[in-house]
Amino acid sequence: MRESYREELNDVVTQLVSMNSMVRTAVHDATASLLKADLRTAERVIADDARLDAMYEKIERQCFQLLARQAPVAGELRTIVAALRMVFELARMGDLAAHVAKIARLRYPEHAVPESLEANFNRMSELADEMIAAAGRVLDERDVEEAEKLAEHDEEMDELRREQFRVLLADDWSHGVEKAVDAALLGRYYERIADHAVAMAARIIYVITGEAPEGEDWPIA
Amino acid sequence: MRESYREELNDVVTQLVSMNSMVRTAVHDATASLLKADLRTAERVIADDARLDAMYEKIERQCFQLLARQAPVAGELRTIVAALRMVFELARMGDLAAHVAKIARLRYPEHAVPESLEANFNRMSELADEMIAAAGRVLDERDVEEAEKLAEHDEEMDELRREQFRVLLADDWSHGVEKAVDAALLGRYYERIADHAVAMAARIIYVITGEAPEGEDWPIA
Repeated sequence: MRESYREELNDVVTQLVSMNSMVRTAVHDATASLLKADLRTAERVIADDARLDAMYEKIERQCFQLLARQAPVAGELRTIVAALRMVFELARMGDLAAHVAKIARLRYPEHAVPESLEANFNRMSELADEMIAAAGRVLDERDVEEAEKLAEHDEEMDELRREQFRVLLADDWSHGVEKAVDAALLGRYYERIADHAVAMAARIIYVITGEAPEGEDWPIA
Repeated sequence: MRESYREELNDVVTQLVSMNSMVRTAVHDATASLLKADLRTAERVIADDARLDAMYEKIERQCFQLLARQAPVAGELRTIVAALRMVFELARMGDLAAHVAKIARLRYPEHAVPESLEANFNRMSELADEMIAAAGRVLDERDVEEAEKLAEHDEEMDELRREQFRVLLADDWSHGVEKAVDAALLGRYYERIADHAVAMAARIIYVITGEAPEGEDWPIA
């Protein structure tokens, strides 16, 4: 009985790892659709978000059942509680990727992002990808050190966001209100994706160390 | 022993109810600071967010301890798991209220919101307040019907957001890029506050009915 319980828990973790890969793909493709004004890719990211949401519901339900069916012991409980939060963080990252793709779709055939901000958004997306990948490795390999890198990446993300504001609020901004508003919201979405990756890693540290995450703070826009 | 366990759980719920009141105050005051360009109130909301964060950490730790110390039975488990999520939703609402106040502070002594959008933001704030209050009543009185009102409010919130975009992207928008960007981000913050209230209520329904929440979806910007 306990053996099969362990197996089911491992199955939850395996699904989280695969959901993590799907989220990386979603963020990558959403950025491609944005920077290339690629409608077909944008549509696919938006459609695929329903798959992520379904996965979220499935894993959450599985966790609820594991909690209800049998009194889990301490380490198992921590894993289930952390999994419930991680699956939420992953689903949110997927939603935010879909938000990016929706802006790409809304502005098609135009490019939502002006050339002067392309490199910035490209780097934001790369960073987000690295952060989600790192959170995935923390989860898959229980590598606590990997989690520490996330904080550095997160600082670079915040700096990229500040740079965006400098560009779009500068006197020589010539792209009008709509593109500025798009850029501000897009920047917010990438920043939040990064925040969710950090929060996800914090939950895994909790599972591994048994310590409740400390000072998991929420960077300001 | 079980008696005291119950008491501790009730204590968690009581703290959540009082955190809910604090969040209402935060949203209300943040909006006042924004619409009146009131620096002192903005500073207070920003400073008080640390109290909400501390409360978040305290309640979360308490839940972790309750989970670890004694195998909770089904209803208790549901309450603890839901409390962990609710305290997160409340902390996020508090952060978002602080985000609003930070924009008020950044633009002081100017008004961040132009007159043409004041009524809109005022209504957004009222709605957010009603939604957080409703979520609090669901929590405090276990009133499932109250939760249904939240969906209606949420629709009005989305409509207010669309109206904002119509105003700030219109040809006759005369307030420049900065105010448009501020308004777009502010609108996003209020919309997210509403989303968190809906998500919070969904968790309480789960505690009361034992049913995992269905189709708790995430409105798009």
